[in-house]
Amino acid sequence: MSARLRAVVLLSGGLDSATTLALASRTGFECYALTFDYGQRHRVELDAARRIADALGVARHEIVRFDLRQFGGSALTDDIGVPKDRPGAEIAEGIPVTYVPARNTIFLSFALAWAETLGSSDIYVGVNSVDYSGYPDCRPEYIEAFERMADLATKAGVEGKQRLTIHTPLIRMSKAEIVETAMEAGVPLELTWTCYEPEPDGAACGRCDACQLRMRGFAEAGLVDPLRYA
Amino acid sequence: MSARLRAVVLLSGGLDSATTLALASRTGFECYALTFDYGQRHRVELDAARRIADALGVARHEIVRFDLRQFGGSALTDDIGVPKDRPGAEIAEGIPVTYVPARNTIFLSFALAWAETLGSSDIYVGVNSVDYSGYPDCRPEYIEAFERMADLATKAGVEGKQRLTIHTPLIRMSKAEIVETAMEAGVPLELTWTCYEPEPDGAACGRCDACQLRMRGFAEAGLVDPLRYA
Repeated sequence: MSARLRAVVLLSGGLDSATTLALASRTGFECYALTFDYGQRHRVELDAARRIADALGVARHEIVRFDLRQFGGSALTDDIGVPKDRPGAEIAEGIPVTYVPARNTIFLSFALAWAETLGSSDIYVGVNSVDYSGYPDCRPEYIEAFERMADLATKAGVEGKQRLTIHTPLIRMSKAEIVETAMEAGVPLELTWTCYEPEPDGAACGRCDACQLRMRGFAEAGLVDPLRYA
Repeated sequence: MSARLRAVVLLSGGLDSATTLALASRTGFECYALTFDYGQRHRVELDAARRIADALGVARHEIVRFDLRQFGGSALTDDIGVPKDRPGAEIAEGIPVTYVPARNTIFLSFALAWAETLGSSDIYVGVNSVDYSGYPDCRPEYIEAFERMADLATKAGVEGKQRLTIHTPLIRMSKAEIVETAMEAGVPLELTWTCYEPEPDGAACGRCDACQLRMRGFAEAGLVDPLRYA
């Protein structure tokens, strides 16, 4: 049995989660990547997640399937239009319609379940509180509250064997800093996926909030984005 | 639009959750029942949940599907034997192998997502800290930590519109008290399901922890259990 500590890493297939996985791996953790097929429009990111997990050499990659369209309430899962061509200031303000109710709470709960069965007390998640300041479940105080809840939820927590740590290495980085970190950590940028509403030919739209933030990040970092845009 | 407040009620199909649903309904909430098909051995409880939701007249019933067998680690989802014929003292002590890692956290996270899309700030769950003192995620301090986390997780919480309340009306009741409460609240006891490992002919085994606690509850309440046992 390996002496390396195990970590569960949430991997959406996007730039941020791929960078987070690379950082967890470089820290020395044996990484267990966890991806969700939850009824999102941009299912192309699932293929991206598979390829990234392969490229970065995870110990295991699981895709958990459920359907958040049963509840609705978000542009990412429902018949609400994905916003396009919004200026940066508008993206940063308020809670966008692409917010999916309680999504990170659901994702972290599954990560917690897997961590407990693996004997792991470390979860990595690529949340960021800078670009999307409107997403409540990307803020440090939310992450800390989840950790406290988790220590009361699990057998390991109750037995005092371990306290959960949710690692959020990107939480205070700008997108440009994330792009630079990704380059340094050897993330296969050409495999990462970002766009909320890709074109029929597979190109990124270049106009949704996620595309705009990514494009600006690469521009500010002075680097070329290998993705194909419409 | 109805003026009644909405509540999301976790409904497994067992005696406790059916009683909880009846109590939520009697309190005046418009009830949205939520059931999980998570790879449990005792899938017969899903049919029980459907019939109970119908009988108690919920506004809507959703069954969310995912597969916790991907992670393993519990006798309810994995190839670990379900314990039989254990004395009560043993059942009450320690964390049994039927504990499913982070299960209530996952269930409550989905309930939170649905509550947010429904504009509801009330969740009902039939957890009990008496009979299964070993389940960490059935204790009051865990429930309170989940509420605190949830208020930081959601749009409604951030905007200060509502604070989540997780109602746990059974949390300190003995099984006999639950049976009596169920009778008073008009729960269709013949529709509820409890057994972890039913016989091939559909009878309850009468020997797993869940059956034993139920049988003892009916006996102590001086009532006849309408279920058929092996």
